[in-house]
Amino acid sequence: MPQYKAPLRDMNFVMNDVLNYPKHYGKLPCAENATPDMVEAILGECAKFCEQVLSPLNQTGDQEGCHFEDGKVTTPKGFKAAYDQYCQGGWQGLSHPEEYGGQGMPISLSVMKSEMIGTANWSWGMYPGLSLGAMNTIFLHGTEEQKHHFLPKMCEGTWSGTMCLTEPHCGTDLGQLKTKAAANADGSYAITGTKIFISSGDHDLADNIVHIVLARLPDAPAGTKGISLFIVPKFKCDPAGNLGDFNNVVCGSIEHKMGIRASATCVLNFEASEGYLIGPPNKGLECMFTFMNSARVGTSLQGLGAAELSYQGALPYAKDRLSMRALSGKKYPDKIADPIICHADVRRMLLTQKAFAEGGRAMVYYAAKYADFMLFGETEAVRNEADDQLGFLTPILKAFLTETGCEAANLGMQVYGGHGYIKEWGMEQIVRDTRIATLYEGTTGIQALDLLGRKVLLGKMKTLKTFSLDVLKFCKDNGLISGNPHKKEMNRFIWPLFKYTTNWQQYSVRLAMRARKNFDVVGAASVDYLMYSGYVSMAYMWAMMAQAAYEKLAEGTDNPEFYKAKIQTAEFYFDRLLPRAKAHAECMMASPKSLMKMKEDNFSFLD
Amino acid sequence: MPQYKAPLRDMNFVMNDVLNYPKHYGKLPCAENATPDMVEAILGECAKFCEQVLSPLNQTGDQEGCHFEDGKVTTPKGFKAAYDQYCQGGWQGLSHPEEYGGQGMPISLSVMKSEMIGTANWSWGMYPGLSLGAMNTIFLHGTEEQKHHFLPKMCEGTWSGTMCLTEPHCGTDLGQLKTKAAANADGSYAITGTKIFISSGDHDLADNIVHIVLARLPDAPAGTKGISLFIVPKFKCDPAGNLGDFNNVVCGSIEHKMGIRASATCVLNFEASEGYLIGPPNKGLECMFTFMNSARVGTSLQGLGAAELSYQGALPYAKDRLSMRALSGKKYPDKIADPIICHADVRRMLLTQKAFAEGGRAMVYYAAKYADFMLFGETEAVRNEADDQLGFLTPILKAFLTETGCEAANLGMQVYGGHGYIKEWGMEQIVRDTRIATLYEGTTGIQALDLLGRKVLLGKMKTLKTFSLDVLKFCKDNGLISGNPHKKEMNRFIWPLFKYTTNWQQYSVRLAMRARKNFDVVGAASVDYLMYSGYVSMAYMWAMMAQAAYEKLAEGTDNPEFYKAKIQTAEFYFDRLLPRAKAHAECMMASPKSLMKMKEDNFSFLD
Repeated sequence: MPQYKAPLRDMNFVMNDVLNYPKHYGKLPCAENATPDMVEAILGECAKFCEQVLSPLNQTGDQEGCHFEDGKVTTPKGFKAAYDQYCQGGWQGLSHPEEYGGQGMPISLSVMKSEMIGTANWSWGMYPGLSLGAMNTIFLHGTEEQKHHFLPKMCEGTWSGTMCLTEPHCGTDLGQLKTKAAANADGSYAITGTKIFISSGDHDLADNIVHIVLARLPDAPAGTKGISLFIVPKFKCDPAGNLGDFNNVVCGSIEHKMGIRASATCVLNFEASEGYLIGPPNKGLECMFTFMNSARVGTSLQGLGAAELSYQGALPYAKDRLSMRALSGKKYPDKIADPIICHADVRRMLLTQKAFAEGGRAMVYYAAKYADFMLFGETEAVRNEADDQLGFLTPILKAFLTETGCEAANLGMQVYGGHGYIKEWGMEQIVRDTRIATLYEGTTGIQALDLLGRKVLLGKMKTLKTFSLDVLKFCKDNGLISGNPHKKEMNRFIWPLFKYTTNWQQYSVRLAMRARKNFDVVGAASVDYLMYSGYVSMAYMWAMMAQAAYEKLAEGTDNPEFYKAKIQTAEFYFDRLLPRAKAHAECMMASPKSLMKMKEDNFSFLD
Repeated sequence: MPQYKAPLRDMNFVMNDVLNYPKHYGKLPCAENATPDMVEAILGECAKFCEQVLSPLNQTGDQEGCHFEDGKVTTPKGFKAAYDQYCQGGWQGLSHPEEYGGQGMPISLSVMKSEMIGTANWSWGMYPGLSLGAMNTIFLHGTEEQKHHFLPKMCEGTWSGTMCLTEPHCGTDLGQLKTKAAANADGSYAITGTKIFISSGDHDLADNIVHIVLARLPDAPAGTKGISLFIVPKFKCDPAGNLGDFNNVVCGSIEHKMGIRASATCVLNFEASEGYLIGPPNKGLECMFTFMNSARVGTSLQGLGAAELSYQGALPYAKDRLSMRALSGKKYPDKIADPIICHADVRRMLLTQKAFAEGGRAMVYYAAKYADFMLFGETEAVRNEADDQLGFLTPILKAFLTETGCEAANLGMQVYGGHGYIKEWGMEQIVRDTRIATLYEGTTGIQALDLLGRKVLLGKMKTLKTFSLDVLKFCKDNGLISGNPHKKEMNRFIWPLFKYTTNWQQYSVRLAMRARKNFDVVGAASVDYLMYSGYVSMAYMWAMMAQAAYEKLAEGTDNPEFYKAKIQTAEFYFDRLLPRAKAHAECMMASPKSLMKMKEDNFSFLD
């Protein structure tokens, strides 16, 4: 298994040289907390914890898996000790307000923390990760009493949390859900029903588990308009946080999965469990969506992390493994053969991983600034615009980065040849672990419908316009007719970026026109549209990174090679990854007919 | 786990309606054996065996895996009984000459047999599959004595075989291999060395295992020119086939792999094991290459099989699972939601699987005709041309069909949403099992170098010309200026096919010109070139299938829906898969600079 090393050098480049985070943090109300020194110290400490504590548990956790005995889940060896250390470090409440026991740091810093944790050991990171989802839901929708009751313990980590949405017959289509909430005399509710695929639904890390559960009130309207949200703790507890009786949240079994085997995926049976309504009745789905956006950005980190970790595993192997000679002549004549990094196609695979990992990081950090503003922007207008832009970027991040994460993980295996298929090396585990990322928190198809159908078409292209204006302004400010001293070099990025971006707008308009006549246009185009959007968004990041690198080189730096490599990776991205967007464009603009006209019975003639 | 059903209807369509196999078989010396009735009977019997015996062992085999105890490998429960039944059916020697105990049927029929076996249960199929490789090597390069000694037992299946190439430090680069052959007084050799990744290297299915081993004679030249081929049985045996002493072929361990867990992948230690030279001294690699081509075509079946099986698994789920409503309005108003097959993007995934499975099948059967001619062509010229054309198609089949097989298997999982990630359904097993296919028998990168470097450029584009003339002749015979009564409908296929094919030739010429100045051009373009070639070759198959379907519809048929579905799938392929070739073209024509100029030390700045 690759030993994870936190890419602090690269993280700092994106934060400081490309996206000017210090200035961004200066504008936030928590500016006093988030000084550059403090941010550096936090990231450094987090890196150490991830490298030294979490990374070594990644492969052993996969080998051992979770245990389910006598209705209880036990996590793999070492997970509990690591969790205790994490809690002692105060990591769980990093970005929650101090008044509820948190550290009051920006959301974006928590995203970087999650990136490092998730790259070092995604399965372990699921436990605090789901807890964050529950905490955010309580923070945004709970009463003051609920917040003071649950959040301090959850910020400490002594209690963890989950999100209970899916039922056996429905995941995406939550309108079908059946779990019931019956009113108790004391104002609480008796929750009854079965939830499946509940990550961290039961485990041995925390004293209590606070489940956020979607259920129907008596006489609630059918479908999605009759769903409410409840807090249902595993153990009942008094306002002081003392634990009482078991609340009949029964873990029925854990799933046997392709990967993330150390993350417990539970069937939970709620048997008249005591629950407390959170948010307005029948508005549970709306409340849940605030969680969904952060969960989806969180999931995008899994894709980025898989690309990073797999690259960290593939690179040393490519330098060590000797096989054949470079086509252009021996590079290491004193060795029996050249290291495989000398071969063009191995470089193609490595650079694809690198471009996706570093480009993905920039995309996430770019979006994370909006997450900060969404919560802490000075005016409501700022907060709303940030919310809109984050809403636009979220499906792109979630689907594009998890799809490219799968590709990158598979390329890392591929670099190892047959050895990549053997468990010992750990490269196949990355492929198995990250495969879930395109499925949960809304599949790629669902993200694509959200992007094209809801965010772009229903939103009348407002957010797309805002984003592409940002891109086009960058092109104008740094391209041929600007005063940019690096415009000549930047030209090779600016022109394609300009063209792909204006095409993006035009394609969107054409799809909007066609969709008026035939709604199937949206579904037929959606995934290709999303992938197109992803490639172009990432191209913007690479162009910004190239510009930043040229500036640093002109300024003078003690590590010019770092910046040269950035520019070269940007060149690679524009030459060999961005062109894929054209194929996606052609596919998304094809008529939906060849998708829709086949009769269901004609898909197969086996019988 | 999807219960496999052999797609005999589709196989017959490709054989009879598209590729005119009955006429093809009529030209072979084994024409008397391979009558249409006999072929149908054989395929039907084989289908039954695969559906009833092998398919049920696929998931249980994965769950149980192979066992390694006391130096011996045991296969999962049921494997031995299935193997015995297979041997009793005379299946192993189907395409070997009657004089050595075979059935004397065409090679292509054996390919179809392997397709069905491999789709039903790839892990199980590895045991007879590797044996076929050893049999072919002995048949092509052994002395008469060796053939009579080994082949009848191997045709029976009482002895099986392996191919022992890879060593811990080398797989692709066999010039580095170290296993030694020392001459014994009796003309045999003492073979000493360690081989890894030996599929079926040890097991409990057969009485003896005949290893074909690459090793170096004393004083052999260094590198690939000093490698010879040896037969090394697990147990020594007399000419009558009676087993004698254990030959010190010691299984050191079995690998723990991502997938194909029921296939034993062994470390074999040869400890002065008695071996017999096969073929000329120091020409082992050339002899091995005849095996490699058939092994590579065999591996392409794994990709095709994964697409087929995953499609068979995804389709019923897509018809059963109710979620959301079709964007263009309710399709099943009486149900709580529409089945997901009503959603455009689910159809995109299903049709991609279908197009790759059926298109892949046509590609393999097209190539298999050359395999028949290569061995049984009437004149040497016919045999040589068939050999050349098969050599050209082999890397395309192997790499393109295994890459698209991985994609199709992943799409099958994706159709299931989160359920696809759970082992119980069996969809993730297909992803894990087929992932090896792009790695073994030469990675995708190696196939791509073989195609562009050796077959196209070193071969002065002769085979590419022959193939594309075949395509262009099809365009001419069936397009606008022809007498084809379906030319109007066919136009939508003919024009793109014509254009992609002529571009293929032009790109090849341009790459050849550039490669003269810079060999790195070849490596940099290779994988994209191969994928381009794959998409265009498959487009040719889909155009031929559409033409055949139009002809059958015009003729009148009792199953018009089957043919309509073929045409619709062809339309889907041309609209939504073929355009990817353009992105590959742009990437392959990009300068190799952005791949080659990054210094090795600049790939990472973690330390």
